[in-house]
Amino acid sequence: MVPFSARHIGPNAAETAAMLRVLGAASLDDFIAKAVPAKLRSQRPLELEPALSEAEALAKLKAMAAKNKVFTSLIGMGYHGTHTPPVILRNVLENPGWYTAYTPYQAEVSQGRLEALLNYQQMVIDLTGMDLANASLLDEATAAAEAMTLAKRAAKSSSTVFFVDADTHPQTIGVLQTRAKGFGIELRVADVAMMKPIEVFGALLSYPGSSGAVRDYASVIAKLHEAGALAIMATDLLALTLLKSPGELGADIALGNSQRFGVPMGYGGPHAAFFAVKDDLKRMMPGRLIGVSQDAVGNRAFRMALQTREQHIRRDKATSNICTAQVLLAVMAGFYACWHGPEGLKAMAEQVYAKTQQLAGALKSAGHVLVSESFFDTLTVRTKGSAKAVISAAEKAKINLRLVDKTHVGISLDETTTDEVVEKLLHIFGAKLAAPAGGIPLHLKRLSTYLTHPVFHIHRTETEMMRYMRLLQSKDLALDQAMIPLGSCTMKLNAAAEMIPVTWPEFGGLHPFAPKSQTGGYTEMFLSLEKMLCEITGFDAVSLQPNAGSQGEFAGLLAIRRYHDACGDKLRDVCLIPVSAHGTNPASAAMCGMKIVVVACDHLGNVDMADLETKAKLHEAQLAALMITYPSTHGVYEESIVDICRVIHDHGGQVYLDGANLNAQVGLMRPSELGADVCHINLHKTFCIPHGGGGPGMGPIGVRAHLAKHLPGHDVVPLASGKTGAVSAAPYGSASILPISWMFIAMMGGAGLTQATKMAVLSANYMAARLQPHFPILYSSALGSVAHEFILDLRWVKEKCGIGVEDVAKRLADYGFHAPTMSFPVVDTLMVEPTESEAKRELDRFCEAMIAISGEIKDVAEGRIDKLNNPLKNAPHTHQDLLGEWKHPYSKQQAFFPLGDHGGKYWPPVKRVDNVFGDRNLMCSCPPMEDYLQAAE
Amino acid sequence: MVPFSARHIGPNAAETAAMLRVLGAASLDDFIAKAVPAKLRSQRPLELEPALSEAEALAKLKAMAAKNKVFTSLIGMGYHGTHTPPVILRNVLENPGWYTAYTPYQAEVSQGRLEALLNYQQMVIDLTGMDLANASLLDEATAAAEAMTLAKRAAKSSSTVFFVDADTHPQTIGVLQTRAKGFGIELRVADVAMMKPIEVFGALLSYPGSSGAVRDYASVIAKLHEAGALAIMATDLLALTLLKSPGELGADIALGNSQRFGVPMGYGGPHAAFFAVKDDLKRMMPGRLIGVSQDAVGNRAFRMALQTREQHIRRDKATSNICTAQVLLAVMAGFYACWHGPEGLKAMAEQVYAKTQQLAGALKSAGHVLVSESFFDTLTVRTKGSAKAVISAAEKAKINLRLVDKTHVGISLDETTTDEVVEKLLHIFGAKLAAPAGGIPLHLKRLSTYLTHPVFHIHRTETEMMRYMRLLQSKDLALDQAMIPLGSCTMKLNAAAEMIPVTWPEFGGLHPFAPKSQTGGYTEMFLSLEKMLCEITGFDAVSLQPNAGSQGEFAGLLAIRRYHDACGDKLRDVCLIPVSAHGTNPASAAMCGMKIVVVACDHLGNVDMADLETKAKLHEAQLAALMITYPSTHGVYEESIVDICRVIHDHGGQVYLDGANLNAQVGLMRPSELGADVCHINLHKTFCIPHGGGGPGMGPIGVRAHLAKHLPGHDVVPLASGKTGAVSAAPYGSASILPISWMFIAMMGGAGLTQATKMAVLSANYMAARLQPHFPILYSSALGSVAHEFILDLRWVKEKCGIGVEDVAKRLADYGFHAPTMSFPVVDTLMVEPTESEAKRELDRFCEAMIAISGEIKDVAEGRIDKLNNPLKNAPHTHQDLLGEWKHPYSKQQAFFPLGDHGGKYWPPVKRVDNVFGDRNLMCSCPPMEDYLQAAE
Repeated sequence: MVPFSARHIGPNAAETAAMLRVLGAASLDDFIAKAVPAKLRSQRPLELEPALSEAEALAKLKAMAAKNKVFTSLIGMGYHGTHTPPVILRNVLENPGWYTAYTPYQAEVSQGRLEALLNYQQMVIDLTGMDLANASLLDEATAAAEAMTLAKRAAKSSSTVFFVDADTHPQTIGVLQTRAKGFGIELRVADVAMMKPIEVFGALLSYPGSSGAVRDYASVIAKLHEAGALAIMATDLLALTLLKSPGELGADIALGNSQRFGVPMGYGGPHAAFFAVKDDLKRMMPGRLIGVSQDAVGNRAFRMALQTREQHIRRDKATSNICTAQVLLAVMAGFYACWHGPEGLKAMAEQVYAKTQQLAGALKSAGHVLVSESFFDTLTVRTKGSAKAVISAAEKAKINLRLVDKTHVGISLDETTTDEVVEKLLHIFGAKLAAPAGGIPLHLKRLSTYLTHPVFHIHRTETEMMRYMRLLQSKDLALDQAMIPLGSCTMKLNAAAEMIPVTWPEFGGLHPFAPKSQTGGYTEMFLSLEKMLCEITGFDAVSLQPNAGSQGEFAGLLAIRRYHDACGDKLRDVCLIPVSAHGTNPASAAMCGMKIVVVACDHLGNVDMADLETKAKLHEAQLAALMITYPSTHGVYEESIVDICRVIHDHGGQVYLDGANLNAQVGLMRPSELGADVCHINLHKTFCIPHGGGGPGMGPIGVRAHLAKHLPGHDVVPLASGKTGAVSAAPYGSASILPISWMFIAMMGGAGLTQATKMAVLSANYMAARLQPHFPILYSSALGSVAHEFILDLRWVKEKCGIGVEDVAKRLADYGFHAPTMSFPVVDTLMVEPTESEAKRELDRFCEAMIAISGEIKDVAEGRIDKLNNPLKNAPHTHQDLLGEWKHPYSKQQAFFPLGDHGGKYWPPVKRVDNVFGDRNLMCSCPPMEDYLQAAE
Repeated sequence: MVPFSARHIGPNAAETAAMLRVLGAASLDDFIAKAVPAKLRSQRPLELEPALSEAEALAKLKAMAAKNKVFTSLIGMGYHGTHTPPVILRNVLENPGWYTAYTPYQAEVSQGRLEALLNYQQMVIDLTGMDLANASLLDEATAAAEAMTLAKRAAKSSSTVFFVDADTHPQTIGVLQTRAKGFGIELRVADVAMMKPIEVFGALLSYPGSSGAVRDYASVIAKLHEAGALAIMATDLLALTLLKSPGELGADIALGNSQRFGVPMGYGGPHAAFFAVKDDLKRMMPGRLIGVSQDAVGNRAFRMALQTREQHIRRDKATSNICTAQVLLAVMAGFYACWHGPEGLKAMAEQVYAKTQQLAGALKSAGHVLVSESFFDTLTVRTKGSAKAVISAAEKAKINLRLVDKTHVGISLDETTTDEVVEKLLHIFGAKLAAPAGGIPLHLKRLSTYLTHPVFHIHRTETEMMRYMRLLQSKDLALDQAMIPLGSCTMKLNAAAEMIPVTWPEFGGLHPFAPKSQTGGYTEMFLSLEKMLCEITGFDAVSLQPNAGSQGEFAGLLAIRRYHDACGDKLRDVCLIPVSAHGTNPASAAMCGMKIVVVACDHLGNVDMADLETKAKLHEAQLAALMITYPSTHGVYEESIVDICRVIHDHGGQVYLDGANLNAQVGLMRPSELGADVCHINLHKTFCIPHGGGGPGMGPIGVRAHLAKHLPGHDVVPLASGKTGAVSAAPYGSASILPISWMFIAMMGGAGLTQATKMAVLSANYMAARLQPHFPILYSSALGSVAHEFILDLRWVKEKCGIGVEDVAKRLADYGFHAPTMSFPVVDTLMVEPTESEAKRELDRFCEAMIAISGEIKDVAEGRIDKLNNPLKNAPHTHQDLLGEWKHPYSKQQAFFPLGDHGGKYWPPVKRVDNVFGDRNLMCSCPPMEDYLQAAE
């Protein structure tokens, strides 16, 4: 049988030979020997289990999954049972048209998911009563941390104290503690009644509290404002259908988890955390914001707004290193709101609420004491006897309750709670039905409307919902249609066999705080995956907790800091970062309280060794770490990496290797062997977790043994490491997508993974060779080769004829391609990464498009066509261009089918999107009602 | 929570009220009271279990499914384990873009699935070595029956004897026996050595035999030909990768099951049976044939070829009543061949073959006797002791073997057979590894090539395969994009929750002949579904065996004949059929050996009662049955149905009610209460099994108690009924799709189903009312209402200005719609059935399209635009029309966006397809290699 690796890798043997011929290499190994410096090459090939077929791997993982027990989890704490509407499950979560899409940087080919995200933002705005919401953050705990640092920046108060409501989810408090430290913020966790607003710059109020208690914070918020402090509310979207909104209470920021809007608990993630602010904070909001703008001919078009806010602009001034979102999950949550609509959500909430009141009444009449009589869906009960006895009786009935302490348990109901479950609960507590008791205080009942936009009303039947999602999907270019040659983003195949386990109930149905006795399958899979990742990276230990590369960087640097601390080197706080580094690097270092010292690069893009040595020596006493991306973002295997690491070690520092480009190393070299002490592993790049249109990602870190005990711990679930604080809400990050990477590695095996790396490098060099006569390749090794990606230099084009990379990027849409990475790491360049998964004919098709575009550029440069009215400036061309009179000095054929009509043309739905207009006329919510009515007419 | 019925039914309460206002009705019940004659209405509402939510129904069915045991089945007999490639599973079988598509009658909006089916045909042609293959039949057994009747028609021999190789699957022999009887054919089942070619008109030779034996039939075939008889081979596609092909051996027809090409066994179906013939039989071939033609501007385009062969043309002269195919499964099998390619399939076959030889050697050396030493993948073993003991030892190891008789067992290996399974087999037989033994005789080894077309070579990586399937999907209009208002075909929602269980391994992994002890889940689901269908139809018993409506008709009429026989009324062989009946009706009657007597209809489309009484009286002594569709294909509730049934009964006949339009009855009336004795139930229409692009269907029948013992039996699996022969290969037809209907009924409940029927009738009447001012409605009741569908009369249009229904149908594609049913049951009309699942705005959108088209027709009729150069004659318009100079006397806007541009336009990939050209230049295989090369350049 054909091994899976042959399904994953694009070019077959004959095509590989043809590509090698173009490069003048006799064999793949011969080529790799030239392209990858020998001194970097690992002496030991990957020793992994033999590669499994798709069926074998699925069977093996299914057997592991069977060791998970899917009980009814009423633990709450931000994670709740939910019914994923099958129409959304099938047509979004299991559909490559959605999950293989890239982040919507190229707005013209992303209108579908941009609209879906706008729905999500509108939903959050409406339910929280805030002015503006972003397109999601990683999880509730990190969202709270982002809110804290935003408050620090925005508050008038000069205090360094941040107050946290003691009735907040413990995992949130844990992450806040970790984050606070680096920024020098003092966390004060106490009952809100104890808070002195004048002493704090901000406060996090939980609404409802982690205990379920619903409290009126309006006056507290007013006092915070008087003191120049910000009020932040951690809240729950379903509760807000019945509760007065944070906006109405005066909050500045509202945040929480949107998981219960149709996204499986998945043992902790991925889910979309929501984050909403008052208007005056909009330019400080972390994360991505989708906005409404217009295209070149004035039609409405969506795009990411206010991109200048992003972390890579602020670098070491950053208070956040967030550079991703949980797009796929936010899209699902937004569609869930469309599917149920306001009255559906309200009915659901009322049902949950009524059951909770029923339960409260029964418990009380049986003599149990409720900690709070004000609640929505969660009760904290003082047990008559030992809380553990109650927990264990519930477990026998296949129900998980929250063990609060020795004499308290928590119960959270949700939309999946049946009457049968309520009956079982009564039985467990020895209670009988009685009059309902307690509930939402009258003055906190919601009177305001929400989800009034048509989108939340017209897709209520499955047929309409299916067509709406299909319509949005059809507007976008994802991997199911063409290659997405994004440098550094590694848009490789996300195989169906890898995705299938994600929606197995055995993985989806587990609460992150479910007892260990129920999570045997996950535990086995984690151990197996950790072992795989250790072998691949050469490290001794792995933490699966960081749920994005940015969190991996943060966790890795924290481990280094804690290590220095433990060694008594408390002064070591300088982090060297090459000038070419990705913007997250300085941001992450800043978040650890490190001082950033920039190291120069030479004209080839390599780290300037002399400058490195100088800086390392200069800061010898304070040197904490070097952060370096390898291969660098310049797409070259720098031979000096080994020496660089040595220099750092010689001066007492640790080396943090940014794993963004780990896919160029797997099987050829190991970060640990190069000299790194820690490295994060972008599972969503190298290990096939799909990009989901801009998230979820996963950024586990590997470390050498001496750092192992400084890996993240967790405040609810004890972890083997655990000395260092948590960086994510869930102990194992986005656990439910880890099967994707496990499947990939299990099916590829060591030889397959190594072959993939070689083929990725070959594909990049093949394309570079084909394109070199048309565009200069910005950087290459001494021998003239590139690594797994390369940079096309278009700076001369702009100078010569005013055509910019953006024009080329938009023009590529006419050719049916998503553009490469624009202007990173060098302005006015395009960074191309083909990955190993693209067939030669697809590589050729892209090369031919770029070559044709270079011809179009020459036409402009050499005056054969107008500088403003040409195929590049007018790109992308839409069907609307064909309906009017054709006034361009080039043919329609050239505009639309420059390489001929081979069937399956992608039609961009809008022309070039106007970012400036959008930012000037900022609108980040669904268009007003009248517009829909007009459209409908 | 919103009940599922509200997700299934399109219009909500407000929209329903608006529709009722248009019709001047005060309430839905008021409207239904007028639209549905009171004398037909049932006195008793549906008594079904309370409606379940999606989650509840899935949980209940999952609990049933858990009672199925998925063992390794090595039973063979035409059903084998197979790995469905995950990329095909996810992107075809689980994707509404494929499964909700309709039969590709409208070629222009079906190019994707037509190409996929052409791949399938090419695959069958190549592997069988025949000249022409159709796009699949229902199952191997009925395919054999079709071959027999084709041979009867085509053979020069005037014999009425059909020879059947005794080494043929018993279920095939069973179905042949059932079919032979009606046609007066004598079946002779014996060893091929016993055959006297001169005495037969045809012979079915099994290659390999059911026992696994591979025999050289070349000389037998030559002798058959000498005697003027036809040679038919039942064969196996995987075996043919190693065996000399039937074509090379001289066979006239080759057939078999393509299940093992990636389609789960599913307890018997659905799978695609293949059927291939020599060139001289092409115009007699049953089933659908996909061909290559060109469009109006000469571009290549696919379409169904030679449609005039279909059964509705031949009516009572028909030798077949087949009117469907197993499109979705044929598409999967074709993609499977693309995925593996010739060398992949060959390697797979060689692996299976090597394991079989290994097993044969071990068994022999342990003293077991093989019935044949020539084999591919199947061994029949004479056991040392009792065969049952071996079977039971195997069962303990979770392996199913075939129990042939007291001293023989069968073992069939397949691509899923692991070394571990082989080891277990050795253990069961007390054997040890030895030298391989036996195999394919040298002169039967295949030397010829196959699957040489590029399509079987260029989609071998998952990325390429995914994109190819996505590309084809994007060419087609399916329910995921717009309503498909096909009269009588009931294109309603196929909900995701209904589809999810279909791909559960507990349903997919069972062999149809697995022991009862392993099929508890299926048994429970069948009983539950039968009970539901009995309550809905009012019948006493249901047979789930017929795997298409046509087979249901056949089984129902057979039951009637057997009943008469049992009553001693052996002369009763006249079947009355109204002139308006669907073509399958007379064909089915003919297949039962009945004489067809046609009954006239009046100008309103109603059965002419006087003529009925006359004919009934005239044939009183011979009257067997009346076949009648209710409501009739004229879309009207004829009040006379009760009287019609009475007349038939009064004259000793039985009433067969064609259930094609059962969806207009559910909850309002019951076929049994109207007077029917038997009725088939199109699960793929009324009960939500998707059309799959033209199959699978399912046509169970319900009968009154007196007919129950005449329901189909089965030759391998004993059934409760079983006096009458089998009509399908598998005992429960296409068992694995029955969960779809079960889910639908369970989630709708009695009230939901009834509401759906009412809403279907309301929607039809609402549309009829809106369209009436623009097109005459051909038939309606005395009160002016229609049933669930209606006929737009366009005969006047053709007369007046030469615009035909085809022009309107193609023009609808420009508006983004699939056309209604064309020219059935009346030439030059369009039959529209909205179903209950379409939202009012979709109904309105279609009405607005038709109204706009009526305006376009008027422009032609009144001379405002040219009779040949107008939007109707030029339809559909493609993007190619926009690239050239616009030479039409109407605007591009009118051509492409006649109702404005609301986003998501469907672009037909080809212009009007030329059927005449295609039939004259018949090509039903993939285009020649050179064309691909040209296209690639």
